[in-house]
Amino acid sequence: MITAAILGASGYSGAELMRLLTARNDVTVKTMVAATSAGQRVDALYPALAGRVNGSFETFSPDLVKKTDVAFIALPSGEAMNIVPQLRENVSRIIDLGGDFRLRSAEDYERYYKKKHTAAALLSTAVYGLPEVNKDLVRDAQLVANPGCYPTSAILGLLPALGQGLVQPAGIVINSLSGVSGAGRSSSFDMSFAEINENVRAYKIGNHQHIPEIESVLGQHAGTSVIVSFVPHLLPITRGIYTTIHATLTHAVTDAEVLNLYDAFYAEAPFVRVKRQVPQIKNVAYTNYCDIGLSVDVRTNQLIIVSVIDNLVKGAAGQAIQNMNIMFGLPEKEGLV
Amino acid sequence: MITAAILGASGYSGAELMRLLTARNDVTVKTMVAATSAGQRVDALYPALAGRVNGSFETFSPDLVKKTDVAFIALPSGEAMNIVPQLRENVSRIIDLGGDFRLRSAEDYERYYKKKHTAAALLSTAVYGLPEVNKDLVRDAQLVANPGCYPTSAILGLLPALGQGLVQPAGIVINSLSGVSGAGRSSSFDMSFAEINENVRAYKIGNHQHIPEIESVLGQHAGTSVIVSFVPHLLPITRGIYTTIHATLTHAVTDAEVLNLYDAFYAEAPFVRVKRQVPQIKNVAYTNYCDIGLSVDVRTNQLIIVSVIDNLVKGAAGQAIQNMNIMFGLPEKEGLV
Amino acid sequence: MITAAILGASGYSGAELMRLLTARNDVTVKTMVAATSAGQRVDALYPALAGRVNGSFETFSPDLVKKTDVAFIALPSGEAMNIVPQLRENVSRIIDLGGDFRLRSAEDYERYYKKKHTAAALLSTAVYGLPEVNKDLVRDAQLVANPGCYPTSAILGLLPALGQGLVQPAGIVINSLSGVSGAGRSSSFDMSFAEINENVRAYKIGNHQHIPEIESVLGQHAGTSVIVSFVPHLLPITRGIYTTIHATLTHAVTDAEVLNLYDAFYAEAPFVRVKRQVPQIKNVAYTNYCDIGLSVDVRTNQLIIVSVIDNLVKGAAGQAIQNMNIMFGLPEKEGLV
Amino acid sequence: MITAAILGASGYSGAELMRLLTARNDVTVKTMVAATSAGQRVDALYPALAGRVNGSFETFSPDLVKKTDVAFIALPSGEAMNIVPQLRENVSRIIDLGGDFRLRSAEDYERYYKKKHTAAALLSTAVYGLPEVNKDLVRDAQLVANPGCYPTSAILGLLPALGQGLVQPAGIVINSLSGVSGAGRSSSFDMSFAEINENVRAYKIGNHQHIPEIESVLGQHAGTSVIVSFVPHLLPITRGIYTTIHATLTHAVTDAEVLNLYDAFYAEAPFVRVKRQVPQIKNVAYTNYCDIGLSVDVRTNQLIIVSVIDNLVKGAAGQAIQNMNIMFGLPEKEGLV
Repeated sequence: MITAAILGASGYSGAELMRLLTARNDVTVKTMVAATSAGQRVDALYPALAGRVNGSFETFSPDLVKKTDVAFIALPSGEAMNIVPQLRENVSRIIDLGGDFRLRSAEDYERYYKKKHTAAALLSTAVYGLPEVNKDLVRDAQLVANPGCYPTSAILGLLPALGQGLVQPAGIVINSLSGVSGAGRSSSFDMSFAEINENVRAYKIGNHQHIPEIESVLGQHAGTSVIVSFVPHLLPITRGIYTTIHATLTHAVTDAEVLNLYDAFYAEAPFVRVKRQVPQIKNVAYTNYCDIGLSVDVRTNQLIIVSVIDNLVKGAAGQAIQNMNIMFGLPEKEGLV
Repeated sequence: MITAAILGASGYSGAELMRLLTARNDVTVKTMVAATSAGQRVDALYPALAGRVNGSFETFSPDLVKKTDVAFIALPSGEAMNIVPQLRENVSRIIDLGGDFRLRSAEDYERYYKKKHTAAALLSTAVYGLPEVNKDLVRDAQLVANPGCYPTSAILGLLPALGQGLVQPAGIVINSLSGVSGAGRSSSFDMSFAEINENVRAYKIGNHQHIPEIESVLGQHAGTSVIVSFVPHLLPITRGIYTTIHATLTHAVTDAEVLNLYDAFYAEAPFVRVKRQVPQIKNVAYTNYCDIGLSVDVRTNQLIIVSVIDNLVKGAAGQAIQNMNIMFGLPEKEGLV
Repeated sequence: MITAAILGASGYSGAELMRLLTARNDVTVKTMVAATSAGQRVDALYPALAGRVNGSFETFSPDLVKKTDVAFIALPSGEAMNIVPQLRENVSRIIDLGGDFRLRSAEDYERYYKKKHTAAALLSTAVYGLPEVNKDLVRDAQLVANPGCYPTSAILGLLPALGQGLVQPAGIVINSLSGVSGAGRSSSFDMSFAEINENVRAYKIGNHQHIPEIESVLGQHAGTSVIVSFVPHLLPITRGIYTTIHATLTHAVTDAEVLNLYDAFYAEAPFVRVKRQVPQIKNVAYTNYCDIGLSVDVRTNQLIIVSVIDNLVKGAAGQAIQNMNIMFGLPEKEGLV
Repeated sequence: MITAAILGASGYSGAELMRLLTARNDVTVKTMVAATSAGQRVDALYPALAGRVNGSFETFSPDLVKKTDVAFIALPSGEAMNIVPQLRENVSRIIDLGGDFRLRSAEDYERYYKKKHTAAALLSTAVYGLPEVNKDLVRDAQLVANPGCYPTSAILGLLPALGQGLVQPAGIVINSLSGVSGAGRSSSFDMSFAEINENVRAYKIGNHQHIPEIESVLGQHAGTSVIVSFVPHLLPITRGIYTTIHATLTHAVTDAEVLNLYDAFYAEAPFVRVKRQVPQIKNVAYTNYCDIGLSVDVRTNQLIIVSVIDNLVKGAAGQAIQNMNIMFGLPEKEGLV
């Protein structure tokens, strides 16, 4: 029996971890930490979990967490870097769902996250937890940086083409459409129903904090500097990310050749489905799948890639559990659909 | 040219007043008061109104308002009762969209609104601004209490049947389904998109503040005490109220007879449409219409009434403008669809 | 290993059965019958099931189904009555998700379903598969009539109060709000997004085919004739039924007494949660739970009951699987959340 | 008084024309043609228009239309090319909202619309009805080809930059997000609520029929060949198009300089608002405005343009009325907000 702690259990990613983990017989969630909700029963805040999750939220202390086999940190960016140093001696497996340990460069972190990194020395020890590229490293890692939701979709979509030199590493255009749960549990006016419904808006055009994550991970695996122009949009749906990517082809290629390349690249990846139809969010909602569609636009010499995930599952809690499965030697799909 | 002031212009009802009034050539909105947004340009808060509304929100003072022909008060309940006494000497036409002057009884107000009425002496001077029943009184009123959104739909649906003794005045069951804009501009977690979307919830079961308004207005016009059980529900739509009413028939009647009765009752009401199909919210959205459908349920001896409005138009700003038209001797439909 | 056949696998209830059953290790779906999609791969019609369901839809023949332990019939009403007689000799467990075997009276069937019953002799052999009231009968049944979605919510909400004589059996008012998936996979204009979105409409006022089902099941268990006035409404959500019920109290009672009565009644029912908060659809979506809320409206002498389910799970596929679990001696919650 | 005929009045664009035109005092809609709904009252098909539109749909004949001052054709592409030749002698003003007369090249038409053009000789006589670029030509045109919804947003967004040589004419990436009303009144399964809700899908990647329209209009005005890669996406909203454009800068430029250029270009365009905030669909819904936002992405040397319209208003009926206003010498904004 694996014992787990969830830090930041009251947020949407934390609740999704509870939903997915409590359906399993081989994992026990022993500790659910949530600062502002400490003392409150979990099923009072999340009535959906009544009968499935027992117990109350607790206040963080290192002692509380140290007896668990694995700690999931589902806190806003900027908090994990203060907590991980307190856990490292006693918790052998830490999976951070936030952005604090995804970048190698403290300077990039400070530029995009607008705060100083207080645990920069640990950046080089963290493994970027995208199992499709780092499974072996994840297996032995103490600290896994679970990828961001936008980067998961963008990187999985681009990696085979970039890695094979099929597309140019510059001039890549990424447009992502996201459901609102990606913004977390919110009481801001901007996220109120009347403002989101029947509406679309782009935000953080050209300066979203996921840009350096996308560029650095792609760059490492492509062996060259990668530059992307990224525009996220907020949609009136709760779950899902739809990422449409335009990249310039380096040479002529057919749809079939591209599909074969992607099929081969993801042959061992149980959660990536290379599709012959255009992907849709509804086909991945509530699952850990990433569906990828590919079109060669001969007229414009572009490869158009569509990559779709559920931001709360493959983009957060599901991928964290996929990483946990790998770390504990379990089948990669255990407890996930 | 009629000059108007809007107090509480930054809320959804206030914005709807601006949207509707600025499309007219015979009304000028001279003053837009909004405490927390004072100094801000209107089109910064409402970019939709750029090019249609010029100017900035201002801080309230009686002097600011006194030069206008009509003052609309679109403030949360509890504020108008402090402001109306300051306006009465200088503003000859006041239309309050809130709940402060809709009840005759200060005791009822305090029981349901949970606050003491500070201008109880004025309650008897206010005219309940439902033009379909009080057009003559509205014409000469200084202070009009614009009806609540739920009461508008419920009263218009029940009035003909109750007035003719067709249904019993007790045991009436009213279920209303409302879009979220009825709750006003909100930054509460409960009104966030992720909590409202793909969801329904009832609220204030049996104790909503619109209950005494419905009962007292119906009672006055039916000439007998009326008791209703009222349950409002919040839906994932922005605009619209769908009210389904069950009332026990006092005697056998056909659908055709009921339709005739309603047709006759509303023959002079330009915004009530007695329908032969089941009403739908989409048919009244962005209009001042109230659509009413009627079914005799012979098996259970009930009259089932469906009454539908746009809560921001017939349930708030549109009805206020309808009242203004009547007060100034204009065609009742002027500037309204 | 239990082998299962799904007849009508291409509809929404059929697809939900596939989704839920293929996640289990103790059940194999051997046969997926769908007339109009026969020959097509399941994951071509439902790309969401790629990697989870292998195989293609087949054309019905009794031989195809006879080797399976259990047959789920998820066909439009009117089809099961022709198929069940062909299966009875060879299939020992049949669960019909449609309406053909829910009523005891062929006359009622013909009045509300507008067609003649061709297997009326079997009506008395079918067990109404609401486990909360018929668990023992379900265990040994060959033919289970899985309850309708509206009746599941209405009956579970009313049964304890009616059974204890807490409310009067006449004058009951039931308003239900349903997501569109209840209408099945549809290509009708009325169910198109542009017609449903930002809209609400009631339909089949007073003559919905679920009325005799609600009245007869409640009547049997209450030991008296029960009369309900039922109005279903269509909402812009995909999943979920929200049922609000008004029933007249036979004597004064407190909220706490009602809650205790319901707690006791459902003490052994793992999927009914008697709530202290107002239920919401989002808390039961994608689960087999029925959440029930209770309010005594002292002023009007009514008990107001809110009963909420996911129409595709507790209202269809999930309840069918709950019945299968009981029939095969498995834990009632196996494979369900 | 201008008399108007609407051909294809039963579709969404036709209904929007009725909604907007019947609110005016200077236009009378004399004839509403709709083949499949002929004989039916308009307010039976569109109950929202009850009390606003009187009369019934009629079957097309040239005689029926010839007495009107202006004919709006709101038919599916492929029908106008058969009707316009029948009207040209007797109707002096024809505005076609479909795609039949937007392209100069019959070959392009046949390639993208997959049908032979039967009135190719008229292509050179049609004026492309984008008032922001062709106002003088529209004024005197007999036949106006009203622009497509996607092209309206894309062209208005790109034209100032391309015309001034600020961005390169090749490698332009256009991603558009559209509400479902753009697909017209539909009873296809793909457009059903359950398939669209909580979903996003791209479609016609790289081969949408609006591509040649965008490229040719931009090319004419930029004086050079323009190549765009265009991906439309379908969103769960009813109205609105959100277009995000990436174009490579030809030289360094600041946000302020770009804004000034656009301000100057659209100084005389009453329906284009160059915004300092990121545009949102809700700000243009139910209006004829096009809101444009501009960001220089220095890091990637791209100009990112966001251009937003209501597809039924500025993308169809509103723009058609704007053209009518110009043709009849009326103020351009008459009857439009």
